[in-house]
Amino acid sequence: MNADQPRRPKVVIVGAGFGGLEAAVALRRADADVTVIDRQNHHCFQPLLYQVATAALSPADVAWPIRHILREQQNATVLMEPVRGVDTAQQTVRTESNAVPYDYLVLATGATHSYFGHDEWAAVAPGLKTIDDATRIRRSILVAFERAETLADTGDRGRRLTFVIVGGGATGIEMAGAIADIARKTLATDFRRIDPRMARIVLIEAGPRVLPAFPPEVSDYVRRALEEAGVEVMTDTAVTQCDDRGVDTKAGRIEAWNIIWAAGVKASPAAQWLDAEADRAGRVKVAPDLSVPGHANVFVIGDTASIMQGDGKPVPGIAPAAKQMGHYVGEVIAARVAGRSADTPFRYRHRGDLATISRRAAVVQFGRLRLTGRIGWLFWSVAHIYFLIGARNRFIVAVTWFWSYLTYQRGARLITENDRPPQEK
Amino acid sequence: MNADQPRRPKVVIVGAGFGGLEAAVALRRADADVTVIDRQNHHCFQPLLYQVATAALSPADVAWPIRHILREQQNATVLMEPVRGVDTAQQTVRTESNAVPYDYLVLATGATHSYFGHDEWAAVAPGLKTIDDATRIRRSILVAFERAETLADTGDRGRRLTFVIVGGGATGIEMAGAIADIARKTLATDFRRIDPRMARIVLIEAGPRVLPAFPPEVSDYVRRALEEAGVEVMTDTAVTQCDDRGVDTKAGRIEAWNIIWAAGVKASPAAQWLDAEADRAGRVKVAPDLSVPGHANVFVIGDTASIMQGDGKPVPGIAPAAKQMGHYVGEVIAARVAGRSADTPFRYRHRGDLATISRRAAVVQFGRLRLTGRIGWLFWSVAHIYFLIGARNRFIVAVTWFWSYLTYQRGARLITENDRPPQEK
Repeated sequence: MNADQPRRPKVVIVGAGFGGLEAAVALRRADADVTVIDRQNHHCFQPLLYQVATAALSPADVAWPIRHILREQQNATVLMEPVRGVDTAQQTVRTESNAVPYDYLVLATGATHSYFGHDEWAAVAPGLKTIDDATRIRRSILVAFERAETLADTGDRGRRLTFVIVGGGATGIEMAGAIADIARKTLATDFRRIDPRMARIVLIEAGPRVLPAFPPEVSDYVRRALEEAGVEVMTDTAVTQCDDRGVDTKAGRIEAWNIIWAAGVKASPAAQWLDAEADRAGRVKVAPDLSVPGHANVFVIGDTASIMQGDGKPVPGIAPAAKQMGHYVGEVIAARVAGRSADTPFRYRHRGDLATISRRAAVVQFGRLRLTGRIGWLFWSVAHIYFLIGARNRFIVAVTWFWSYLTYQRGARLITENDRPPQEK
Repeated sequence: MNADQPRRPKVVIVGAGFGGLEAAVALRRADADVTVIDRQNHHCFQPLLYQVATAALSPADVAWPIRHILREQQNATVLMEPVRGVDTAQQTVRTESNAVPYDYLVLATGATHSYFGHDEWAAVAPGLKTIDDATRIRRSILVAFERAETLADTGDRGRRLTFVIVGGGATGIEMAGAIADIARKTLATDFRRIDPRMARIVLIEAGPRVLPAFPPEVSDYVRRALEEAGVEVMTDTAVTQCDDRGVDTKAGRIEAWNIIWAAGVKASPAAQWLDAEADRAGRVKVAPDLSVPGHANVFVIGDTASIMQGDGKPVPGIAPAAKQMGHYVGEVIAARVAGRSADTPFRYRHRGDLATISRRAAVVQFGRLRLTGRIGWLFWSVAHIYFLIGARNRFIVAVTWFWSYLTYQRGARLITENDRPPQEK
């Protein structure tokens, strides 16, 4: 290489979720070295994670190796390593074993569960953000029924078979609906000493209605659909305490061995890494071009970024928003690398909202188009299969859903990484 | 219930592998209460476990909930609990939380890895017997490549990408062939800093040839096929030491981060539970009707039992043998429950042996029928799909194999249950 030749700019992207991957792909023709760093080896399709947690799909159905997705993008290198911090003065990303230099940095590190200051609840009320979270929740749901069957003391069975889901957003209603399906249909005839249909499933939402992102009449529909499926829905009910035997709410105590947390998220520590201004959820307040004020070559996107839409509402923390931000930032960097200016601000386009309650009932809101019931479910299924990465995954998921639609069966009812059931608590 | 009515006999089966399940099914029309106890909730199709360990199949593709398999057998109850011992005087099985009474007991608890007195090797050289073993090995294979890509020090990469498989039986050759496929095909173009094709794969066998259960010319064929696939095959080479940086053999040291143990098995502790006579591998020496001498109502089957065939050779520790024993014992117990005598001794019928080396090469020996190469592979595939439990699994596995046959891809390349790669050793 000629010593006078300008060095190829280095773009580092931390996090290979929807935003980070989209940014990498948008840089595919840029004359730059792109390095994607993630602590996992796989991109996870989070909207279907609850189906792994409820034994409908296998982990490999909703996840795909990052380096395989980018294998044909010759300017992209993938490193599997946890990131420990950012040195904006030296322009390096500090990982477990390296200091990776950057000219442009994209932080797309996502969000994690927020227990609103009660991090000790995490041990008894797991949240659902990663494949490992999903298999952990799957294990605890399935073990609950297994333990109820072996328990000599029938008095404990009720508590063992009570499932509390905290949070009435999309993840919460999807988990509640799926657990109801498991208890009422999948496992209905598999036990001899207990009747899985007697399981109690309680969805607790602090606000006045479930699915607050949707119009009120959709919330009403979802609530009725959940109740028909056998879920108790409690709104305007804040959880004040979680422990290993149940939850306290403003409306009283619920004894339950199984608590699933779907109530809140907080951003990953990107704001600390950058020493940047953050909102209450820890998201970095970014400039209109998604860069960090004071660091024009550092961008924050997806669930880690806080930015307002034109109407003053925040850009929502959903997959399409992360993808749009990733694509935008990838193009901004590609333009700058090519010596072009790029000063159009980011603009979010809201395409719609989807959520599913159980087999045969979903809600879809796309502008003025609203679908519910079976048609909604069909639309929801097709949309999710379409956006899955990899033709094999699409095909396997389609077949698996069709199969379970016909049989009510869930093919991934495995209790793994656990040689024996947990000790009596 | 009338107090004079005779109590229904209780049959307890410990272990829901091939033998235990077959025994339960053979008792489906018996007037008895059958209780199947297993510490896992799933029956695992062990012959395909190496495909989970090598990222070709998902855990749920080769495992199926025990209680789902037996859901229509009304006289069968399934308990997921570890068994701690047997009290032959009281006629109870001691589990974690219960004492389960029996009139007839079937111990089908299988085998585990044997390190020939060096149990400390287990930590560095995992074996392959359960779904969790398989995901653990999958993780270590995939992490090896990931770490090699991130390593700044290129000197360490060779050791990182050396895979030693100890044991040249069916599991050993299948693992070696599959790892060669991963390195030479699946991952070939996915990395930027390393060339996965440079990985070194060494199969070490203490005896004079691989696949000793097959005729010598088949062993020769398999050795050549492995070598063509890029595996170094060392026969007549005993491993004298394993540590976290490699293995010592009589032929010298091999530096390797990745060691997989496929060399020996020992029976589960059924012999200790019963205080019964065992062979060197810990298997209970059973009577011709598979009962334990001195305990006519206690049977031991499968890999936990030691019994000779008519020709003086031991019944092999393979799935068809376990199934035949399970079926036989189930029928013996059903006859006794019905008040009939059952004194035909167990007779093993050897149907054949199968093993696969990689895509497109397998060996099949059924009496005088011998198939190798593609035809062997096709036969092997069809046979394994046929014996899988559950129509869904059969279909998914068939589709997955066809897909990976066309693309060389392995759909389950997930590194899970591990938030971060292991620390440098």
